Amino acid sequence: MMGRMTQAATVYGCIEAGGTKFVLGLVASDARILARTRIATAQPAETGAAAIGWLRTAVAEHGRFAAIGIATFGPAEVLHASPRWGFMADTPKPGWSGADIAGPYARAFGVPIGFDTDVNAAAVAERRWGAAQGAENAVYITVGTGIGGGAVINGAPVHGLGHPEMGHVPVARHAEDRFGGVCPFHGDCLEGLASGPAIERRWGKSLSELPRDHPGHGIIAHYLAQLCIMLTGIAAPSRIVIGGGVSQTPGLIDAVRRETRRLSGGYFAGDPMDIIVPPGLGENSGLLGAFALARDAERG
Amino acid sequence: MMGRMTQAATVYGCIEAGGTKFVLGLVASDARILARTRIATAQPAETGAAAIGWLRTAVAEHGRFAAIGIATFGPAEVLHASPRWGFMADTPKPGWSGADIAGPYARAFGVPIGFDTDVNAAAVAERRWGAAQGAENAVYITVGTGIGGGAVINGAPVHGLGHPEMGHVPVARHAEDRFGGVCPFHGDCLEGLASGPAIERRWGKSLSELPRDHPGHGIIAHYLAQLCIMLTGIAAPSRIVIGGGVSQTPGLIDAVRRETRRLSGGYFAGDPMDIIVPPGLGENSGLLGAFALARDAERG
Repeated sequence: MMGRMTQAATVYGCIEAGGTKFVLGLVASDARILARTRIATAQPAETGAAAIGWLRTAVAEHGRFAAIGIATFGPAEVLHASPRWGFMADTPKPGWSGADIAGPYARAFGVPIGFDTDVNAAAVAERRWGAAQGAENAVYITVGTGIGGGAVINGAPVHGLGHPEMGHVPVARHAEDRFGGVCPFHGDCLEGLASGPAIERRWGKSLSELPRDHPGHGIIAHYLAQLCIMLTGIAAPSRIVIGGGVSQTPGLIDAVRRETRRLSGGYFAGDPMDIIVPPGLGENSGLLGAFALARDAERG
Repeated sequence: MMGRMTQAATVYGCIEAGGTKFVLGLVASDARILARTRIATAQPAETGAAAIGWLRTAVAEHGRFAAIGIATFGPAEVLHASPRWGFMADTPKPGWSGADIAGPYARAFGVPIGFDTDVNAAAVAERRWGAAQGAENAVYITVGTGIGGGAVINGAPVHGLGHPEMGHVPVARHAEDRFGGVCPFHGDCLEGLASGPAIERRWGKSLSELPRDHPGHGIIAHYLAQLCIMLTGIAAPSRIVIGGGVSQTPGLIDAVRRETRRLSGGYFAGDPMDIIVPPGLGENSGLLGAFALARDAERG
């Protein structure tokens, strides 16, 4: 239109802060990923400085930040009302307990910051653009090095006393599984029995490396199905998105669906075949989750 | 004030619709219970007519209804968007599957109707006036003839695909418990192992009739503690209110707190001793829950 000046595009700084790597992205308001990189997770100050450096350079090329979203590994303080908002809580990861995660970005860029767990952020993104669109309640579970979960209930991510820690729920043992579990806190909680390290410790291989007829597939599906039933019983989600490295084992999602259906005994509303789904955003659930947090932070 | 006419007080019709009895009440806007009665639950039409009759007589004495709240046993259709809102869903209770619960009251009184599960309503009431005041997320569990639960998350009761059915979650067996469970759908789910009928079938008595040193107390606490950990892991509530007949067994709430703490292994935020509490509204959680639904329906 005449008289309208050309402006640089508005972009969002997106940070998926993981325990082994940070994925950084610049995302446009229409959710296109304009640039991305990954850096290894070192100590908090060093990692934050490297991330800020990349974001500064990238934003200089693409426009200006409207907001920044941080989807972080946990435990972290996600409650806005808390004076420790934006900090890590106690974590066994050396150097990270009590680290200020959000602060450096706020000081460097002076824009609104969204901050939540990586799994809550992924639940928001999958509900907004992915496999859980239109879901009244949506859950995102990751099954990998650890097991975690986030949820959107009544339109917003679930916080509370801390935030959800879905990997550490108790489960009933599979009759053929005598493994003691790897969780340092609980031994044979869900994460202790069904995470990647639990699988490798028990059978010497990852789940996808085991033969298709290995009993490990059924055992892991049995445990993950129990979490699906707990979620259904407690939060009645219409979508449970299962992501993370272990979830990519061929056939696993289908096995979890069938086992959930079997254990349900026809009791709950809805069909596990429809409810349990792989991520619609593929490997971008986390980065687009950070984008969703940035958009929400911008709106205040 | 001069010129102001004396008006009859505004009252709310409150219905706690249970499988064995309906508790009816007239409640003033300051939550005082002005009148109450109970009627046995017969067939839906007959029970509804009796309830409407009592409410008509009572309201004639006390004022006029601003709204009516119905806190019902389940499963029921609680989603406003559903064409079956206000109806029962499939239930083993003879005559009640698909019954129209809310409709007769709407037609008889022409006022806004609030309709939710008895446990969701109790969670709302306990968070508003009872033991869960100020809780970011609050859960109400009832342990009696069945086990059920409702929750307030992000400021509103949890609906979804149906509504929560917290009694039917899987649990890890207590090492000394060989009982097969009484749940017709799942056998040894939580309700199958820890409800009143499961206790009576297993030990021939109610939990309060068993000697204080009977292992049944520890076994039931072990199962209820697992639900508390699932709730904590999935929804991070700052209060879990445990009501219902079985929960009144002397010492049980404390045993559940201790077992939850033991099973938690110090992992979760908060202390089960603070989180797990008896109802603050005593036996009125359900009726005042219906009142809360009525108030919310009035506000639209």
